[in-house]
Amino acid sequence: MLINKLSEINKGNINDQIEAIVLITEIKLKLTKNEKKYADLSLQDASKKIEAKCWEVDENENFLLSLKANEAVKIKAVVGEYQGSIQLTIKEMERAKEGEVNIRSLIPTSDWGIDSMKKGLQFFYDKVQSPHLRLLLDLMIFSDDHYERFSTYPAARRVHHNFYHGLLQHVLEVLKFSYTVATTKRLTDRQIERLIVMGFLHDWAKIFEYKPLPESGFTEEGTMLGHIFMGAHKTLNVMKEIADFDEEDKLIILNGILGHHGKLEFGSPVLPKTVEAQILHHADIMSGDVESIQSFMSEDGNNEESFTGRLWNMGTEYYKKG
Amino acid sequence: MLINKLSEINKGNINDQIEAIVLITEIKLKLTKNEKKYADLSLQDASKKIEAKCWEVDENENFLLSLKANEAVKIKAVVGEYQGSIQLTIKEMERAKEGEVNIRSLIPTSDWGIDSMKKGLQFFYDKVQSPHLRLLLDLMIFSDDHYERFSTYPAARRVHHNFYHGLLQHVLEVLKFSYTVATTKRLTDRQIERLIVMGFLHDWAKIFEYKPLPESGFTEEGTMLGHIFMGAHKTLNVMKEIADFDEEDKLIILNGILGHHGKLEFGSPVLPKTVEAQILHHADIMSGDVESIQSFMSEDGNNEESFTGRLWNMGTEYYKKG
Amino acid sequence: MLINKLSEINKGNINDQIEAIVLITEIKLKLTKNEKKYADLSLQDASKKIEAKCWEVDENENFLLSLKANEAVKIKAVVGEYQGSIQLTIKEMERAKEGEVNIRSLIPTSDWGIDSMKKGLQFFYDKVQSPHLRLLLDLMIFSDDHYERFSTYPAARRVHHNFYHGLLQHVLEVLKFSYTVATTKRLTDRQIERLIVMGFLHDWAKIFEYKPLPESGFTEEGTMLGHIFMGAHKTLNVMKEIADFDEEDKLIILNGILGHHGKLEFGSPVLPKTVEAQILHHADIMSGDVESIQSFMSEDGNNEESFTGRLWNMGTEYYKKG
Amino acid sequence: MLINKLSEINKGNINDQIEAIVLITEIKLKLTKNEKKYADLSLQDASKKIEAKCWEVDENENFLLSLKANEAVKIKAVVGEYQGSIQLTIKEMERAKEGEVNIRSLIPTSDWGIDSMKKGLQFFYDKVQSPHLRLLLDLMIFSDDHYERFSTYPAARRVHHNFYHGLLQHVLEVLKFSYTVATTKRLTDRQIERLIVMGFLHDWAKIFEYKPLPESGFTEEGTMLGHIFMGAHKTLNVMKEIADFDEEDKLIILNGILGHHGKLEFGSPVLPKTVEAQILHHADIMSGDVESIQSFMSEDGNNEESFTGRLWNMGTEYYKKG
Amino acid sequence: MLINKLSEINKGNINDQIEAIVLITEIKLKLTKNEKKYADLSLQDASKKIEAKCWEVDENENFLLSLKANEAVKIKAVVGEYQGSIQLTIKEMERAKEGEVNIRSLIPTSDWGIDSMKKGLQFFYDKVQSPHLRLLLDLMIFSDDHYERFSTYPAARRVHHNFYHGLLQHVLEVLKFSYTVATTKRLTDRQIERLIVMGFLHDWAKIFEYKPLPESGFTEEGTMLGHIFMGAHKTLNVMKEIADFDEEDKLIILNGILGHHGKLEFGSPVLPKTVEAQILHHADIMSGDVESIQSFMSEDGNNEESFTGRLWNMGTEYYKKG
Amino acid sequence: MLINKLSEINKGNINDQIEAIVLITEIKLKLTKNEKKYADLSLQDASKKIEAKCWEVDENENFLLSLKANEAVKIKAVVGEYQGSIQLTIKEMERAKEGEVNIRSLIPTSDWGIDSMKKGLQFFYDKVQSPHLRLLLDLMIFSDDHYERFSTYPAARRVHHNFYHGLLQHVLEVLKFSYTVATTKRLTDRQIERLIVMGFLHDWAKIFEYKPLPESGFTEEGTMLGHIFMGAHKTLNVMKEIADFDEEDKLIILNGILGHHGKLEFGSPVLPKTVEAQILHHADIMSGDVESIQSFMSEDGNNEESFTGRLWNMGTEYYKKG
Repeated sequence: MLINKLSEINKGNINDQIEAIVLITEIKLKLTKNEKKYADLSLQDASKKIEAKCWEVDENENFLLSLKANEAVKIKAVVGEYQGSIQLTIKEMERAKEGEVNIRSLIPTSDWGIDSMKKGLQFFYDKVQSPHLRLLLDLMIFSDDHYERFSTYPAARRVHHNFYHGLLQHVLEVLKFSYTVATTKRLTDRQIERLIVMGFLHDWAKIFEYKPLPESGFTEEGTMLGHIFMGAHKTLNVMKEIADFDEEDKLIILNGILGHHGKLEFGSPVLPKTVEAQILHHADIMSGDVESIQSFMSEDGNNEESFTGRLWNMGTEYYKKG
Repeated sequence: MLINKLSEINKGNINDQIEAIVLITEIKLKLTKNEKKYADLSLQDASKKIEAKCWEVDENENFLLSLKANEAVKIKAVVGEYQGSIQLTIKEMERAKEGEVNIRSLIPTSDWGIDSMKKGLQFFYDKVQSPHLRLLLDLMIFSDDHYERFSTYPAARRVHHNFYHGLLQHVLEVLKFSYTVATTKRLTDRQIERLIVMGFLHDWAKIFEYKPLPESGFTEEGTMLGHIFMGAHKTLNVMKEIADFDEEDKLIILNGILGHHGKLEFGSPVLPKTVEAQILHHADIMSGDVESIQSFMSEDGNNEESFTGRLWNMGTEYYKKG
Repeated sequence: MLINKLSEINKGNINDQIEAIVLITEIKLKLTKNEKKYADLSLQDASKKIEAKCWEVDENENFLLSLKANEAVKIKAVVGEYQGSIQLTIKEMERAKEGEVNIRSLIPTSDWGIDSMKKGLQFFYDKVQSPHLRLLLDLMIFSDDHYERFSTYPAARRVHHNFYHGLLQHVLEVLKFSYTVATTKRLTDRQIERLIVMGFLHDWAKIFEYKPLPESGFTEEGTMLGHIFMGAHKTLNVMKEIADFDEEDKLIILNGILGHHGKLEFGSPVLPKTVEAQILHHADIMSGDVESIQSFMSEDGNNEESFTGRLWNMGTEYYKKG
Repeated sequence: MLINKLSEINKGNINDQIEAIVLITEIKLKLTKNEKKYADLSLQDASKKIEAKCWEVDENENFLLSLKANEAVKIKAVVGEYQGSIQLTIKEMERAKEGEVNIRSLIPTSDWGIDSMKKGLQFFYDKVQSPHLRLLLDLMIFSDDHYERFSTYPAARRVHHNFYHGLLQHVLEVLKFSYTVATTKRLTDRQIERLIVMGFLHDWAKIFEYKPLPESGFTEEGTMLGHIFMGAHKTLNVMKEIADFDEEDKLIILNGILGHHGKLEFGSPVLPKTVEAQILHHADIMSGDVESIQSFMSEDGNNEESFTGRLWNMGTEYYKKG
Repeated sequence: MLINKLSEINKGNINDQIEAIVLITEIKLKLTKNEKKYADLSLQDASKKIEAKCWEVDENENFLLSLKANEAVKIKAVVGEYQGSIQLTIKEMERAKEGEVNIRSLIPTSDWGIDSMKKGLQFFYDKVQSPHLRLLLDLMIFSDDHYERFSTYPAARRVHHNFYHGLLQHVLEVLKFSYTVATTKRLTDRQIERLIVMGFLHDWAKIFEYKPLPESGFTEEGTMLGHIFMGAHKTLNVMKEIADFDEEDKLIILNGILGHHGKLEFGSPVLPKTVEAQILHHADIMSGDVESIQSFMSEDGNNEESFTGRLWNMGTEYYKKG
Repeated sequence: MLINKLSEINKGNINDQIEAIVLITEIKLKLTKNEKKYADLSLQDASKKIEAKCWEVDENENFLLSLKANEAVKIKAVVGEYQGSIQLTIKEMERAKEGEVNIRSLIPTSDWGIDSMKKGLQFFYDKVQSPHLRLLLDLMIFSDDHYERFSTYPAARRVHHNFYHGLLQHVLEVLKFSYTVATTKRLTDRQIERLIVMGFLHDWAKIFEYKPLPESGFTEEGTMLGHIFMGAHKTLNVMKEIADFDEEDKLIILNGILGHHGKLEFGSPVLPKTVEAQILHHADIMSGDVESIQSFMSEDGNNEESFTGRLWNMGTEYYKKG
């Protein structure tokens, strides 16, 4: 049975043999206690992650050792289950042939819709009327150099927005939340324009801090320098290219990028020094925390308990009823 | 010269004699080093706070000793200034006669407009369609027992929303911010209704935690029990009065009220355990922090410095340019 | 060999076959690396916890899958040992028949003796002379609605007082410690009466926060609301039922319940605001910490080391000599 | 009017001239803004502390400059009051003549009674039956070298037990609390003996850490080394003098002294590693905190407020009603 | 009597009239309680800071109001003293005429000697053999754009190295300490070269973060962006100008600058990720802390106490004997 | 093939049979899931640590159970590898005969060279000219009672300087770093002498806190009392033996030992109260942190990643390039 999405597999398929094209996210050869080799695999497609075992290693060892994370493979496997979780036992596996699969189609993706998100970007871009600020956005976001990455990168390595278009979705959330606060609290037009620019740019450097999907992890400069420095550095250089960039806007926008983690202990080298920067910081936490809880709860498979397990970055469990 | 608002006084009035009706917010008799008595007063009307001295104490000592905070007085005073700040020297002072002044008119008040705020309340109330939740709001907010206090109390003793209608404005801010997040993040209708109810009720018990304006300070039960306990306690009792109140809604709403400070060290006895409760918490901080900065900056009189002083609850200074 | 208590088994019984009636506290089916199923069990009776394996799963799989935590079973097993710890290999197992065993007899129980503890309760109850405070205790503790639970529940899920009558023993410890402090430090009779009432009530709501033994874990309302809120809430409602309950006693007792964890970061929404509340807090910690260390050290089986392992809630190891 | 105790002065004495013998605890010469010198004094006797001014400095400047803290003086003064607090205006002042006053009678003193406290010491000493532990107490406490200091020193510089016999009272409190816990929790006789010894010795070195009353402050070695090190150091040396001092008792008692502050951040270089040491720690905090609150509340003069001010070492205010 | 250095004034000069040229560091007009104006001044020259009063304000008010911090004035004053501290009473004051004084000579200055410090710079510069690293130092430090500021600025606003050449002295200290560690711990030549470059550059941006002496305070960009960002930003731009700048050196040096505060909570947006960066961090703290204690103790005037007061940034007092 | 150093084994030896004399650092008998016994061993010699398995347990069980950590054994084993790490499969094993091996030669050792380190000790000893300080060093360090231990013990149980001569190397590092700071910052000769003495003595008591190598772990008194107390205690006793030991030196040196962890939360019961003590503290951290990073990076075997794993005591990962 050829299946299109891993999420189609359910407990009705136990003992069925399935065929699928999946992405390997992790592969390890291990030894049983009685010295038999087997392979432990983590697989995914855009719809789901799933665990698998391959017990016939000996005859395939070289092939298995040659496989790497982020390769697409075609598998034949038997659906199993043990105490609640579905697990595959792989019977046959081969590299997906070139042209047979688009890796992109195996990567989890924002469910907001790219067209809708582009309209969102346009909406906020249009609010920015000051020419120097528009130009800053043009050069940082809408240039050929960056737009592709900006619109496809994830916004985190795990927990929240760690999917295709994740950064884009996160930026739009931050812009929406910030804009509601800004209009409710009657910020001036100039403050609002700056806040929008800061929303666009605050996590911009994640396009250099992370490796592109399906990889997940930091680049060397990401670990050594961090997106906060890298983003403010690039922004300042682009500002210098723009003739007569307003000096106060410059300081406020850079402070907003540097300060958007809100506290020194979260990696901001300076605190937010304007009301815009403070709004940006809270909107950023709001976006990350809400998405963390929602995605964590949607992945929680066990429906017998009233509460999820503990979500590590939030420090608590969540109520699943209601 | 009779003046209507303290905010009318400016440096052009130095040495003018003015007459005004003001509220005493603090009065202390002190001794100069050469044993001369004088009185230090803090005065306000709805527009401004101002400091004053009265040097002729001896002949008026009994009258001065009889004055208390939150009394309205009619003063004649000379406008002075020393190194930048306006200060009054009181020449004559008498208690405002009954009927001569409405204390209410001397208290700082939300500039949002009560009609507009009532429309806001209605907007969010209308989003709550579940009968048991509507009834909860009817009994907690829109009952004769509480509506007067709910719609006039401040939401803090100082720093933010510490003015007439302050609680109401804060609740509306929290509702607006939460609602934007809830719709953006596609919460279910049931989640949204609960979040609105939690927004209405989270600080409800401040109407018993604080003394009414123009007093500022905690009631005894406010200090001993706190608004978090008092609010959840009352809400639970009202829920019990409502036939067949949904059990999950009950736990989630109460957890939202108990958890709205977000962390144990900020006085929540339990953490937020739902996405609604987490949104409420961030919207609450957003409202308080943004108002803190805005009101602090608007009171900062000295225009020679680029930065304000340090805002104690935010731990930093703010940039005044831009 | 039929044994009455698991604690009777010692290293002299290695390779003996024993029969016993025990409670399952955990059961999991697992797979060896060569795909053989086996069951891992945690068993206990009132005297001891013990680990067991069952290697013959295939023929019994349905029976094993049907077993749940907190069921009593009759087992035949061989006593084994490997590098120091006794472990059972189960050969036969069947559900205990109705009437064959009282689950209660398989649960660890306070060794203080229920009669002695009842005398203790009476002693402190007799010290409370004020009618309204007596009535509060009558309704909260000595009523048919609560006495059964109050006198049998544990006071914690693990580490200390997590046994039958555990709450009762903990309350008596807190009362004894508090009373010594109160008389030594010459508190007034009124303060002492309030302190006794607070000692009785501070953890009262654990009878709704926890599931009854032999289950161990939180109820839904326990996790969502916590015993601090639930206890103060119920106490306040009972106080309101009592005619003319003294207002100051009300605030002080409620503050004592709310504040008994001593610091906000430990889950008290307000700090202790009276000397009675502070005594209660320290007596509560004293009881929990001392019991933690004693029970941890009594379970430590390895007598070759001078120190125990690290006790997680105390953050250190303990000296076993002396 | 000659008065015997400063606490006799009340608002009925305003404008009376009084005579008294008092201790100077602080004296400072200051300049009024119009360059007139005056003296600010803090005075006390065993019953009360009081503030005083002396306006006639010029003719007495040399005498005033020669006065030091902790000298006894005879004063004639006029009783004054301003906004609630009694204050003296000194008209005449001279050094108390030798023999005219016993400084000791001007120092606040434990109200427990020295005879009663000696009985307390004997009670706990008698519980210690092991010869080596008795000998340790004999040499550390009941020797001619230390008993005088041990029985008269304060246990703190301020806040709690900072009075004559303060250390003795604190030690007895710790012993009483610890002993109740030890018997309630059924410690072995050996544990109880060690706990009593630790109670006696834990703060012993305060007799070298502080200056003797009426001075208040640290000695040089007190600041540089602290009573925790100094006490354990001396105790270990005395143990070495005792033939065949049990090795385990040695480690446990020293660990108890070193660990009695309970956490590294409170100055204990090691954590408590036995149940005795943990009991000692909690009994020590209990004694200090309860006395802090009681003495703070008894000094709070203003009866118009429901709450005291904030007690700095406890971090909160206290409720004065009830 | 014309004096050359304020530090020449001693208690033997009481009542002498002196003449001196000094820098005003603070001036405030104040009102005595009996409404007489006076001026409070803080004065300094390179040798000492001193407090002064001017009682004759009325006739000079316009002149006094026109004076600003950091102006040089010629004063005639009477030397006074009250309870230990020398204080001046100004009798005459006029602005120092152009050419009459070099402001520079009134500013505290490193006592290391500029020639000696230049030799130190050269010593470490010579250790850097890699052309791209040399060029980096040439462009950042030894260029006409920056050398003047780099060699004269202070390294802190207060407490340590807040004097002329302070940054230079601090950099040399950091280089010396680091170099000893690097050679002792056998770092490779490449690591040592990088460490030297990081020592030169870590606080480089203080030349834009602070205002030049005698002013003391942050520039706008200093407060909004901070020297950590500004320094790494400029360094990265200069690196980009250097052909084929080694990529690993780039990341390591930038990480060293960004991480030199050692922990996020001290304002580093990333942690030190190399052994060089960790050495730099500890050498930086060593230099700041040691200088803090030395300068604090040298300013402590009161020789009657064994300990200084509490040094705010170190959190403790220091022993003055020995 | 007889090998001399485990570090000689490399991937070219896969499937070779080797013979070696090694030290067992850990041995555990375990059960495979199909109930087959095997042994897990950690082995080392001076050059390297290596993991090993022994599958033939049954016939050798008594011998294996008799083996303990820190025994030397002669093994024949086959070199294997699985996914990158070398691992041995033991075929034959016997206890090394007496005389066949010197345990000492199997323990990792400082690579500084003992002669060079002795010269270092002499260099710093010669800087101490004051007779009472020299005598203190003679009695504490260079006496027959302590020199053997002092010159061979490790300075930590793991992470840094946990090798033969480790304490000696650490002391020399601290002395070198301190001395550079002291001369750079122009401390007086007396301060420098004290600082050297403090460098020699600060960790002295580790010779009683740890068990001797090849054991690794704390002695009972080490855990109960700690090296900070034990070192200051012994030092004070030796000072008392020295006639007329300067009182200020005594307090300063003891404070330096007690305070060398720099903060209470790191186990110092008092803070450093002199500039010498502060220098000592920073030099101590510098030595430990730098060695931690260097030894951690040298053990990191995997060369495919740009960064090491997280070093637990430093809280971060390190960059391996450059």
